[in-house]
Amino acid sequence: MKIHMELGANSYDIVVERGSLHKCSTLLNLNRKVFIITDSGIPTALSEAVRAQCREGYISTVAQGEASKSISVYEKLLGEMLSLGFSRGDCVVAVGGGVVGDLSGFVAASYMRGVDFYNIPTTVLSQIDSSIGGKVAVNLGGIKNIVGTFYQPKKVVIDPDVLATLPKRQISNGLAEAVKMSLTSDEELFSIFEQPNPTDRIDEIIIKSLMIKKSVVEQDEKESGLRKILNFGHTIGHAVESEAELKDLYHGECVALGMIPMCSPEVRKRLIRVLKSLSLPIRYPFDEEKALKALTHDKKSKGNMVTAVYVEKAGSFKLKDIPCESLKSDLGLICER
Amino acid sequence: MKIHMELGANSYDIVVERGSLHKCSTLLNLNRKVFIITDSGIPTALSEAVRAQCREGYISTVAQGEASKSISVYEKLLGEMLSLGFSRGDCVVAVGGGVVGDLSGFVAASYMRGVDFYNIPTTVLSQIDSSIGGKVAVNLGGIKNIVGTFYQPKKVVIDPDVLATLPKRQISNGLAEAVKMSLTSDEELFSIFEQPNPTDRIDEIIIKSLMIKKSVVEQDEKESGLRKILNFGHTIGHAVESEAELKDLYHGECVALGMIPMCSPEVRKRLIRVLKSLSLPIRYPFDEEKALKALTHDKKSKGNMVTAVYVEKAGSFKLKDIPCESLKSDLGLICER
Repeated sequence: MKIHMELGANSYDIVVERGSLHKCSTLLNLNRKVFIITDSGIPTALSEAVRAQCREGYISTVAQGEASKSISVYEKLLGEMLSLGFSRGDCVVAVGGGVVGDLSGFVAASYMRGVDFYNIPTTVLSQIDSSIGGKVAVNLGGIKNIVGTFYQPKKVVIDPDVLATLPKRQISNGLAEAVKMSLTSDEELFSIFEQPNPTDRIDEIIIKSLMIKKSVVEQDEKESGLRKILNFGHTIGHAVESEAELKDLYHGECVALGMIPMCSPEVRKRLIRVLKSLSLPIRYPFDEEKALKALTHDKKSKGNMVTAVYVEKAGSFKLKDIPCESLKSDLGLICER
Repeated sequence: MKIHMELGANSYDIVVERGSLHKCSTLLNLNRKVFIITDSGIPTALSEAVRAQCREGYISTVAQGEASKSISVYEKLLGEMLSLGFSRGDCVVAVGGGVVGDLSGFVAASYMRGVDFYNIPTTVLSQIDSSIGGKVAVNLGGIKNIVGTFYQPKKVVIDPDVLATLPKRQISNGLAEAVKMSLTSDEELFSIFEQPNPTDRIDEIIIKSLMIKKSVVEQDEKESGLRKILNFGHTIGHAVESEAELKDLYHGECVALGMIPMCSPEVRKRLIRVLKSLSLPIRYPFDEEKALKALTHDKKSKGNMVTAVYVEKAGSFKLKDIPCESLKSDLGLICER
């Protein structure tokens, strides 16, 4: 199926189709120099499958993990493109999860002030969420996504077949974002997670999540208003994630934790049941002081208030200004002592 | 006088007014955190005059010269903003020439995916050219402007009074870009340079040059077509500039050299007379092989052809595809042996 993202001059299509990775040259213009960025955690067969379809493809593999979203890795990739003689008419393809997509997108956005960018997300998280929307970035000084821009891909190719080999924890990590979108925008999608074996309906979950994100991004490309709902669970989630000692939680797991304090008690009860069934964390031992400090550095902070998305009733949301002081007790709800 | 740059959602005003530096708080919103970027070659009085008008202003001074347009300086500035707790609602002000403007613009474009950017150009070159148009960038691997984006300022404040203390060579450096614009687009402006003492008419030259650039940028914000005319003299100019040994030529001087081979013989004759009267170079000893190599790395190169702007008749131009082989003899026209 093809989902059209309507963003004026920045419009693009998202193709969701089993087997599409192996025929991406029919969907993308690979008849030029192609810089394929992937990471060491992604099966090499996936990037090789893309390269095999290029006229002149080069694979660059960064180390798996958030540490690759750095200005130094960004500079290294740009330098490689330069050495390989990439020109403005060539392109960048991301093959991997959110780290690869965010990093590759920023490289594509700034190499010669922008070359074509294609995204082939290979994790649940990136297929349902991070591969679309055009937010590209790297981290700096321990703060996530602080350096970047808005840059839309020319096309996104989603092949659910590539999820088959993912470990269960990785899949749940991605589904956390779908739970997030369902809670603010689509109670029907949320109810899929309240039934047994939601992963049997993964194609449906991907498409429903993409439709929510599409609608939000189309209305607010540059995150000036509505798009904030996509940050549900992220304000606290990012703070937990930034906390330096904590390298053993995935992004979706942090978002899972981050949603818990931002719900009404009744929604929270349903949410916790869903998170448990997906083996997602509902408490975690982290340094509350450090997380609190990271919170006040978050992009969404203004003065002494943090604006966060709050869900009173499943399928809807409101923006809530939360004084920094009361965030401490919110963190207490999810901090394991 | 106020020149309005019409770029839809990215529109902004350029204020050209003597004394405007000292009342920029009436023109810009400085009632927030303000990150002022300047360089060691700009009189500190200028950046201090801006800071004095801010509620909370911070000055960061980079080393004078092209070497500051690097990813490492870019990262350092972003890190400073982060340490100072800058948020998305704060702003960046460039006080300086093209190096400061290009670097600051890229910092502003990517800090938290974009904060407001104001440009206060303090050299002739930046006042007539580089401060408007939204091209922001740093250099990499010896190639100019290879990493960057398009990011429009919120306002540009041009105060011709600040030019008073500039050395003559700096002024001629800037006027080279005005000569460039006049040759492709405005023979009347070119004729000012054919008369005695053109610098007495500097305000007029600034405004006429801005009007040309405004018209070009409005029609082609992202440099997909028409905007190429602004690159007149730059294809060869950049190659001469990139050539590593050559640190003693200014940008405008390189553009002056770069224009010479790209004119018809009769225009070339008039151009050389003008360049001489402005004490701009018409020949220079550089390594032709290295310059040729840099040329083929230039953003404007496509395969074995370089597309360059060519002036057959003053005030008009055409795009010409030049085979890499014949560039060698073009370089011969300006290379002093």
